[in-house]
Amino acid sequence: MNTLRLIFGVTALTTASHALAWDYVLLDSDTPAQNRQITSQQLGIKTAKPFSITLRTLHGGRQEGVSIVDIDNGTMKLSVVPTRGMNVLHASVGNVRMGWDSPVKEVVNPAFIELNGRGGLGWLEGFNELVVRCGYEWVGHPGLDNGELLTLHGRAANIPANRVTLHIDEQPPYAIRLQGELKEQAFKKVDFSVVTELSTLPGSVSFALNDTLTNNGDYPKEYQALYHNNFSTPFLEQGARFVAPVKQVSPFNDKAKGDLPDWQTYRAPTRDYDETVYNVVPYADAKGDTLAVLHNKAANLGVSVGFNTQQLPVFSLWKNTDTQGQGYVTGLEPGTSFSYNRRYQRPLGLVPTIGAGQKRQFQISYSLLADKAAVDQAVQRVTQIQDGRKTEVRGTPLVDLSKE
Amino acid sequence: MNTLRLIFGVTALTTASHALAWDYVLLDSDTPAQNRQITSQQLGIKTAKPFSITLRTLHGGRQEGVSIVDIDNGTMKLSVVPTRGMNVLHASVGNVRMGWDSPVKEVVNPAFIELNGRGGLGWLEGFNELVVRCGYEWVGHPGLDNGELLTLHGRAANIPANRVTLHIDEQPPYAIRLQGELKEQAFKKVDFSVVTELSTLPGSVSFALNDTLTNNGDYPKEYQALYHNNFSTPFLEQGARFVAPVKQVSPFNDKAKGDLPDWQTYRAPTRDYDETVYNVVPYADAKGDTLAVLHNKAANLGVSVGFNTQQLPVFSLWKNTDTQGQGYVTGLEPGTSFSYNRRYQRPLGLVPTIGAGQKRQFQISYSLLADKAAVDQAVQRVTQIQDGRKTEVRGTPLVDLSKE
Amino acid sequence: MNTLRLIFGVTALTTASHALAWDYVLLDSDTPAQNRQITSQQLGIKTAKPFSITLRTLHGGRQEGVSIVDIDNGTMKLSVVPTRGMNVLHASVGNVRMGWDSPVKEVVNPAFIELNGRGGLGWLEGFNELVVRCGYEWVGHPGLDNGELLTLHGRAANIPANRVTLHIDEQPPYAIRLQGELKEQAFKKVDFSVVTELSTLPGSVSFALNDTLTNNGDYPKEYQALYHNNFSTPFLEQGARFVAPVKQVSPFNDKAKGDLPDWQTYRAPTRDYDETVYNVVPYADAKGDTLAVLHNKAANLGVSVGFNTQQLPVFSLWKNTDTQGQGYVTGLEPGTSFSYNRRYQRPLGLVPTIGAGQKRQFQISYSLLADKAAVDQAVQRVTQIQDGRKTEVRGTPLVDLSKE
Repeated sequence: MNTLRLIFGVTALTTASHALAWDYVLLDSDTPAQNRQITSQQLGIKTAKPFSITLRTLHGGRQEGVSIVDIDNGTMKLSVVPTRGMNVLHASVGNVRMGWDSPVKEVVNPAFIELNGRGGLGWLEGFNELVVRCGYEWVGHPGLDNGELLTLHGRAANIPANRVTLHIDEQPPYAIRLQGELKEQAFKKVDFSVVTELSTLPGSVSFALNDTLTNNGDYPKEYQALYHNNFSTPFLEQGARFVAPVKQVSPFNDKAKGDLPDWQTYRAPTRDYDETVYNVVPYADAKGDTLAVLHNKAANLGVSVGFNTQQLPVFSLWKNTDTQGQGYVTGLEPGTSFSYNRRYQRPLGLVPTIGAGQKRQFQISYSLLADKAAVDQAVQRVTQIQDGRKTEVRGTPLVDLSKE
Repeated sequence: MNTLRLIFGVTALTTASHALAWDYVLLDSDTPAQNRQITSQQLGIKTAKPFSITLRTLHGGRQEGVSIVDIDNGTMKLSVVPTRGMNVLHASVGNVRMGWDSPVKEVVNPAFIELNGRGGLGWLEGFNELVVRCGYEWVGHPGLDNGELLTLHGRAANIPANRVTLHIDEQPPYAIRLQGELKEQAFKKVDFSVVTELSTLPGSVSFALNDTLTNNGDYPKEYQALYHNNFSTPFLEQGARFVAPVKQVSPFNDKAKGDLPDWQTYRAPTRDYDETVYNVVPYADAKGDTLAVLHNKAANLGVSVGFNTQQLPVFSLWKNTDTQGQGYVTGLEPGTSFSYNRRYQRPLGLVPTIGAGQKRQFQISYSLLADKAAVDQAVQRVTQIQDGRKTEVRGTPLVDLSKE
Repeated sequence: MNTLRLIFGVTALTTASHALAWDYVLLDSDTPAQNRQITSQQLGIKTAKPFSITLRTLHGGRQEGVSIVDIDNGTMKLSVVPTRGMNVLHASVGNVRMGWDSPVKEVVNPAFIELNGRGGLGWLEGFNELVVRCGYEWVGHPGLDNGELLTLHGRAANIPANRVTLHIDEQPPYAIRLQGELKEQAFKKVDFSVVTELSTLPGSVSFALNDTLTNNGDYPKEYQALYHNNFSTPFLEQGARFVAPVKQVSPFNDKAKGDLPDWQTYRAPTRDYDETVYNVVPYADAKGDTLAVLHNKAANLGVSVGFNTQQLPVFSLWKNTDTQGQGYVTGLEPGTSFSYNRRYQRPLGLVPTIGAGQKRQFQISYSLLADKAAVDQAVQRVTQIQDGRKTEVRGTPLVDLSKE
């Protein structure tokens, strides 16, 4: 079953040889994004269900000029936004969608966003995707660090990708890979490039990211990464649960203390709830692989997010169970770091350094758990990773935010 | 006469049934703005003078990619800027223009403006239209409110419209309506949409706005609106007059105190004058309708701005009678609020709230008063609204700006 | 020889009559930038080597929509960026390039830059050209002046040009001229326009700028200009030298004091060197013409930058001899001003004023010195201008930066 192959086998897939593949350049310095479609039929591929990849451009409003790549793998439909950091706008299988309903309805072109606006919260004017890349120079809440205003969650989500390419393996299972590069560069400041890759198999209910951050500079440089993966109904509901192998959990701030006893369950949409955040240090298996699961109350529908703690050692659980209109959403967010401003994370050891010329890889897999069996299997995998080890529930935040 | 029909009957026009109309989508998420023209001849309409609507795109400089809709109703020519909040760039009848000559010569694409630049005055880099929408999250001078820098006059003028549509009634008088929607949205912050409508009748010397603000969010939210309507020669000149039914007038700040005795008359272009602003509380008729008039010294040429004080209860008279090159211009600005920073207006009761799911409508009519008869009739209408009621001339500003 | 003709005769060239020329509009309000090429063959011109001018547009990443004009004069290839202030991206003769390798690899569309980001250093996210126009409202390091944050080196480099035109003389030597206008305008703040011109002769190894700043406003206004001309290998290397007629040199700041004895020679790429800057007051000839030369250690390859001290009285030598990856580069920067924040330059008399309606012309010539003879001749010209006059080597910075 493709789903579980991907959950447990994403590394194998994403590092497979690319030797035999159809390759398409969708966008490059001399290739504008133009409406086009590539289908399995055109390629003469016989899969159980035909698949297609479509490139289109949005117009009007603050989404003028935004490129979208729609991937229909035959079972799952995915939309990726090259203009916004190769973020994944949403995914769906039948009428089950991964993603959420943000008040932000447009897919906003970064040209129209001032990240430095609203005291560094300008990022919120474009925030509506299923997967939002945060980083890579920094992540976290806005605030001064070394005399510079760091804007919310860094720039990645608002960097348009260049050289967007599509690769379809010529051999079964005909893996579909979409790549795009983000350049995060400023003279004297930063010289990062991030080659992002999203892959999926025809007919599967899963997809995976495989991002490679390179420090092209001659000096070591601090970096941070966080994958802001956002889910809502039908997974999120009153009594929905979050399951993961947990070494330590702590409230992000004083507000989150109150709900700490119930940190793994969710409320219905709750007026004036705003949000609570829990900082999680996950356990992993011997290879560092771990799994976080969100499932509905009946435990017959869910999603899993797989990642590797050698790449992304910590995890934020963002519970924004406010009203539907305000954004009823939870974030399952593996990262190098929590969501504090960078200046708070240095003392926690959560501001890693990448050496000159070095690379860092971030691999994350996303699977729909379409029935009780799939949910059970994922939860068993969590139990297997926890392996009876203890969970520390820390009553107080790791950071005293009252101290500036 | 269409002019006066519009002055006094704008509500009827703009709420007419849209059942039978030619409808055109000029811009939408899957419809790029492309050069095109729609004419009365094409539609087989016989009007006294043919009319046309033209869509075009500007290139070069900071106006790259800006869309313009030119409406020639046979008598009046109007240019609307979808890329800049559906602002009205200028209007003219023959060689009489409504509008002004700003030092800003380009119609600037908001992509090239940092509203947060210049200490929150970045808006000034694009300010050159006849009608500039201000709001809707806030209006007023830049400054901190609740710890956030509010930039000058809000975002509306720098929000590109999506879904721009044109409607032409199939029945006489063949009203022409141009609609475009502004989305003012940020996660956790604001979820407004504004459906703007500009309408005019073939052959008339008038146009009207009918904007509907909707709070799509689940929570009540503060809002402010101000219509920055800017006029210059041939109406504005030495001895030109402003006439309106006035309940209270007060100087905006200490500087405006000096010219208070002459607040209703205008100077010639005056070196180093900069600007004075007067805060006006208008009287209205029983329905809330009121009228503000600007006419030249000879009182044989003018413009009127009609609005409703239940929608827009206050009014700012902006007298920027500096040199021609600096911008010789006056603003007739109905609003929910004056032009103080929002933090000053809360104590004045001028920061209204819009409930969850609620709508607010803003209707404003603009008419050329082409001769003495038209000016006289508009001035009579003002007198009729004033109805002998007293005007309070307040010597001191409503806000003590020396207190921060 | 064209090279030297241009070095010493640039004024004559750039003010020649334009009466007989082929004229092309490459970009204008109603003319989008479209791929096109104009060649000497098309024009029926017989030059020793054919020349061509090509207009193209970049796509993807933060360079989406950026226009480039490539001029191949038969010997020298130049690329100009209308979207970025008509900056000169790079120039080359054979495999010798003028320009440098910035960490910033994209030619960044200003729509994606927040100049106010990074504490006013957002400019660094686009900085990678051979010639970067700085100004014209201000230049220098970011910081508050009169209560406003002045961002690094002003806006010019991030203003897209409008009305880009190409002119080719119909008579030998068939001078090629590329013009584009920058509008630097904000209501009540500034009303500048800058007509930029780049010219070159077919077959030459030189080009020249001839920019005209106009204050369209009714009031005198402070202005500053600085031409940030950036060179690297093969001119810049260990032992490379800077040669100019110098009246006074001083270290920009305390850091630059240390290398003051060797201020005219260059280091190899040096880890952790960062940068040193020297403030130079040049001597000029009776007409104000002067010359700055950078040549390699062997003195058989160099570049010269000619300018006029009546237009640009001071000069900054920027020695950024850090590693190749960090940006191994030197700036030869004639200006009205040094690189201090504007508030520091007023007391130095380096914040000039341009009257209402006045114009200022800035002419700069750039020549490859392709062999020892050319280098020698340029160095002799420097000696001739110095004419035995004394050089004051000032040990301390002109500005005490420790005082805020």
